[in-house]
Amino acid sequence: MFRKTLKSIKYNEGDLEILDQLLLPGKSEYRKIIDVEEGWEAIHNMHVRGAPAIAIVGCLSIAVELYRNSYESKEELHDYLAKKFDYLVTARPTAVNLMKEAEILTEYSGEMIGNAELSTEDMRICLIKAIEDLLSKDICDNKTIGTFGADEILNGQNNPCIILTHCNTGSLATADYGTALGVIRTLHERSLIEQVYCTETRPFMQGARLTAYELVYEGIPSTLICDSAVAALFKNTRVTAVVVGADRVVANGDTANKIGTYQIAVLAKYHNVPFYVCAPLSSIDFDIKTGHDIVIEERSEKEMAFVGETRIAAQGITCWNPAFDVTPSSLITGIVTEKGVFHPEKIGDLLQYS
Amino acid sequence: MFRKTLKSIKYNEGDLEILDQLLLPGKSEYRKIIDVEEGWEAIHNMHVRGAPAIAIVGCLSIAVELYRNSYESKEELHDYLAKKFDYLVTARPTAVNLMKEAEILTEYSGEMIGNAELSTEDMRICLIKAIEDLLSKDICDNKTIGTFGADEILNGQNNPCIILTHCNTGSLATADYGTALGVIRTLHERSLIEQVYCTETRPFMQGARLTAYELVYEGIPSTLICDSAVAALFKNTRVTAVVVGADRVVANGDTANKIGTYQIAVLAKYHNVPFYVCAPLSSIDFDIKTGHDIVIEERSEKEMAFVGETRIAAQGITCWNPAFDVTPSSLITGIVTEKGVFHPEKIGDLLQYS
Repeated sequence: MFRKTLKSIKYNEGDLEILDQLLLPGKSEYRKIIDVEEGWEAIHNMHVRGAPAIAIVGCLSIAVELYRNSYESKEELHDYLAKKFDYLVTARPTAVNLMKEAEILTEYSGEMIGNAELSTEDMRICLIKAIEDLLSKDICDNKTIGTFGADEILNGQNNPCIILTHCNTGSLATADYGTALGVIRTLHERSLIEQVYCTETRPFMQGARLTAYELVYEGIPSTLICDSAVAALFKNTRVTAVVVGADRVVANGDTANKIGTYQIAVLAKYHNVPFYVCAPLSSIDFDIKTGHDIVIEERSEKEMAFVGETRIAAQGITCWNPAFDVTPSSLITGIVTEKGVFHPEKIGDLLQYS
Repeated sequence: MFRKTLKSIKYNEGDLEILDQLLLPGKSEYRKIIDVEEGWEAIHNMHVRGAPAIAIVGCLSIAVELYRNSYESKEELHDYLAKKFDYLVTARPTAVNLMKEAEILTEYSGEMIGNAELSTEDMRICLIKAIEDLLSKDICDNKTIGTFGADEILNGQNNPCIILTHCNTGSLATADYGTALGVIRTLHERSLIEQVYCTETRPFMQGARLTAYELVYEGIPSTLICDSAVAALFKNTRVTAVVVGADRVVANGDTANKIGTYQIAVLAKYHNVPFYVCAPLSSIDFDIKTGHDIVIEERSEKEMAFVGETRIAAQGITCWNPAFDVTPSSLITGIVTEKGVFHPEKIGDLLQYS
């Protein structure tokens, strides 16, 4: 089946452009990223968002610099890399993927210092190549997540599915295809989507602006609901499963994801609807034991009080705007990764791949 | 304690003006209602909203006409009244209060036909008086609800309370004072509000626009949260109780209220937070047995897809926009009325007042 492509990231040999998600759905405009500072800014101000896309754009912004810079020594190159990553990971604290790629690439860089066969120039080329590979690896991993997730939800049957998703986990949140939305795409490719419901996802409206945009773009039967209509939906409609993404899954299976995820999980449990977290291994953080220790980013009141330049909340009211919440593993039916679907208690089995 | 007054309805001897709630919080502007058609339009398009306020404005729009009209006979006046009420109740189907006032006033009118001592003119004056009395009765009932609700929540202690409320149930939703927000006002008058959290209440934003406005106006310590942050709030903060209003409470205690109420009730149960419905007797409909039979108004997609003239949802997406949902009585701790606080199973005890 032909699939139209909605590219969130355009990259070619040191040229990086991202689809400016702040302008969607009104305008579809690309924004050039010429250095790491612009990468940081694009992540921090949410021109690009979604844990996998954040990691890739962060790393690619380093590749852009690596392309045009030259380095006196391997040590200088290594220090440069470590410093840039230290800076980049401060752009948004909750998503773990960028942090993990930073660790992997910095370790790889460290190893190359000790390898006498490699010149500084070789090392530069290898680092660029390693970063560029993240793009294709992400797409491949997402398609595998899609297959595992679809098979799990179908459970050997081929009944049309009604799926609820929250926030945006599609082409716009990843290199392409998507995690939770990748599972929806796979089901749609098999002609087994009866209806997708997506929440608006206040305050940033990733559901109304981005997920709805992707669903309409691909002709997937879909309906937008307010964040407050989830329980009413569960009561009125036989929802097959909930699929969401993750900004960080920790060692016991607790999962940080977009604010509202936790309450959807509680509501799914109450209405006996299976609840799946769809995330690549790079979203799993075995260094943190429980969700209690995840740092939750709190964002500006302005995101809640304004739509564009129009103030929508009463003047003078204080706003509490946590960007994420933590869903305890007890509410998660399964975690769908590129290595298979794991019960939250069993994600330790994934340590072998870390 | 001096209380500033935010008047949603200004009425004086046949002159009716309502605070246009579509313009709040940006503009505080009154809108004149000169006949029943304008009353219907103001209710239907939500220039005024909140079940008690809808009933009062609907009835007062009839009083405005009664003031300047004259009638040939009592039968003609009675037919006029019945016809106008039949029309008015179509403006919004879910709230029961206007329907009940229509029944009471039409019955009263019918009785007056049979009373030989009353002239047509007497009957006109009596109907005007009966309608005008609704204003003061509503305020008095709300203050009683406030006292009963505050006492119930405090439970003999005088500990500062953290209260969550949804939608708007304040001065703007009633003749004055409010139902659930009336309970909050009473607690604040006793200096026992530590913090009020109010939800934004998408799509119409009654929380962000109206409740936040009332809370700031009265200097009550308060914080606005997204509809999706309720579970996160319950997890992070020791919330004393949830208070909400009602558009219709039916015979078994099931309650129709603003979309999102049902899921807050599920989340409150999960986190062991008491959940109170605050409503005058006129919101209780003993003619309907269970929530299953309540007609739920579905409103236009435009309310979700646009903020003012700005489209916020992706072009082409379908929206599901139910204005209300039904909370089953099993999730309700108590129903706070002007006659006391009733366990939902016990609201039959209120039949004696109907």
